[in-house]
Amino acid sequence: MKVAIDAMGGDFGSLPLVEGVLLALKEKNFEAILVGNKEVLEPLIPAEFAKRIQIVHCEDFITMEEGATSALKRKESSIYVAIEMLKNKEVDAVVSAGHSGATMSLATLKVGRIEGVSRPAICTLMPRIDGKRSLVVDAGANVECKSENLFEFGIMGYEYATSVLMHHNAKIGILANGEEECKGNEITREASALLKKHPAFIGNIEGNNIFDSSVEVIVCDGFVGNIVLKTSEGVADSIVYLLRKYIKSSPIGIFGALFMKNVFRKLKKQIDYAEYGGAPLLGINGSVIICHGKSNAKAMKNAIFQAISTLENNINDKIFNAIKQYK
Amino acid sequence: MKVAIDAMGGDFGSLPLVEGVLLALKEKNFEAILVGNKEVLEPLIPAEFAKRIQIVHCEDFITMEEGATSALKRKESSIYVAIEMLKNKEVDAVVSAGHSGATMSLATLKVGRIEGVSRPAICTLMPRIDGKRSLVVDAGANVECKSENLFEFGIMGYEYATSVLMHHNAKIGILANGEEECKGNEITREASALLKKHPAFIGNIEGNNIFDSSVEVIVCDGFVGNIVLKTSEGVADSIVYLLRKYIKSSPIGIFGALFMKNVFRKLKKQIDYAEYGGAPLLGINGSVIICHGKSNAKAMKNAIFQAISTLENNINDKIFNAIKQYK
Repeated sequence: MKVAIDAMGGDFGSLPLVEGVLLALKEKNFEAILVGNKEVLEPLIPAEFAKRIQIVHCEDFITMEEGATSALKRKESSIYVAIEMLKNKEVDAVVSAGHSGATMSLATLKVGRIEGVSRPAICTLMPRIDGKRSLVVDAGANVECKSENLFEFGIMGYEYATSVLMHHNAKIGILANGEEECKGNEITREASALLKKHPAFIGNIEGNNIFDSSVEVIVCDGFVGNIVLKTSEGVADSIVYLLRKYIKSSPIGIFGALFMKNVFRKLKKQIDYAEYGGAPLLGINGSVIICHGKSNAKAMKNAIFQAISTLENNINDKIFNAIKQYK
Repeated sequence: MKVAIDAMGGDFGSLPLVEGVLLALKEKNFEAILVGNKEVLEPLIPAEFAKRIQIVHCEDFITMEEGATSALKRKESSIYVAIEMLKNKEVDAVVSAGHSGATMSLATLKVGRIEGVSRPAICTLMPRIDGKRSLVVDAGANVECKSENLFEFGIMGYEYATSVLMHHNAKIGILANGEEECKGNEITREASALLKKHPAFIGNIEGNNIFDSSVEVIVCDGFVGNIVLKTSEGVADSIVYLLRKYIKSSPIGIFGALFMKNVFRKLKKQIDYAEYGGAPLLGINGSVIICHGKSNAKAMKNAIFQAISTLENNINDKIFNAIKQYK
């Protein structure tokens, strides 16, 4: 199995990305292709890994500040080259912590969509209280959606949840402003009517249900999905910030916190996105994992494992069949 | 000052609502009018408060399970009677922990809108890391919005933030899927163009900015606002749940937590909605505060103080003038 890693464009440079590749190679058997500047990448690879890592050199990369559309013209950029390799079947998957809009646009236009899918979607994994993960589809790829798009997001998310995440009894819900059937906006109500064909569909769900283990596949447009992600991060970060502040301001709190280290470590592990890697881009004819720009080595390692797992589980065949069945 | 309290329809019955009224009466000078079933309410009022509390008897009330529209026909229900009293200027404000949709529909239709306001909005206070509160407008009243509605939400929220919450340099942001001007959906981009007239407008903001003290007035439609609220509650509840679970599962964690009580108490106080009361319904010709159905006595007390504060600050005159100025 060949995985291309866009080794440029992450928020912290190439080092954590390459370290993640090394961690992954220690645990699994696959071929790693680093796409990026050879002068930057070569010094980061220890001699014992030299045989299992290939570098595909390119000079350019897309920074986070650039528009996604400019990526389509930048043929020498690392993500362009990586996606081109996927298109030409020179690699089986692409993992990138660079510009997510660029990755998505290139993957959609170059690699193409699975037959029957009108719009690919970013499928982000969210922590929940039972230690498993729920899926938010779409988490930012499609700002304006039709009901048909939401319907497909539900089907694609379900296939990913059941086969890759092993949620054998996964449920699909549409994120809305209330559980009742009358709630939602025009588009979610229409999507609800379409999703009723799917036996796993449970109707409207609310924001808190993302975390309470009552539903596995949370369907929304990319505008709402992005807001949900950033809001969740914001709340978690604020609570951690306040806990730290209050602990530091009290000697007895500092003393107590010494005995809570294990508790905090477990909590951190459970809500840390690095534990599960990145977000698969569902609906394209290939395996593409989009990582957080701030990904550390562990997040990269897990993102590579995600890419391998989507391939091993033939997720794209399953999506193709499910879309055909329910449409 | 006369404040009508819808004393029925809360999730925990009338007791916490009446207790909140008693707490408020101990601290501030106002007349409390409890609207609800006399047989239920009278036994809850201690003799020493009998002179300062009037009961307006009615048999009916709207349960949380009913549709908001049915409220318009239920002339004997507590919220109908309370809103009717506001309309007839028999009271200055209404506070309700009952069915929020019913309260909103009745207030809008009976009491009417401030001239220039096309849609009233629920303005929910959110905790943030500096201990102050930011405002999410609209938090659920208007599911489908036009850009003009969002524009008015920004103006109304700003007036509330500056005069009632004392955010003298309040900033207005539109909640979107990215900070850049090109981000957002068609309606938020149009609203952005309208809000540029307002000197406090800073453009698009993201979900995490609600809590990081970078912006005070967060503008969104009620569909998104409700999802933001429920998502935030969900994350906070999940973290508290997991902390408790991990503490309980380790003897050393239990020991450490004993010394952290003060830390947890401070954290709880800062993120507890009961600390600030309810959500004002902005844009109607009167003062109406919508409370969480699960409001405890403290939340009710603070909601009553909010109602008094909106009156003392002439918030409706300020909204009228601001809408006229910027439209």
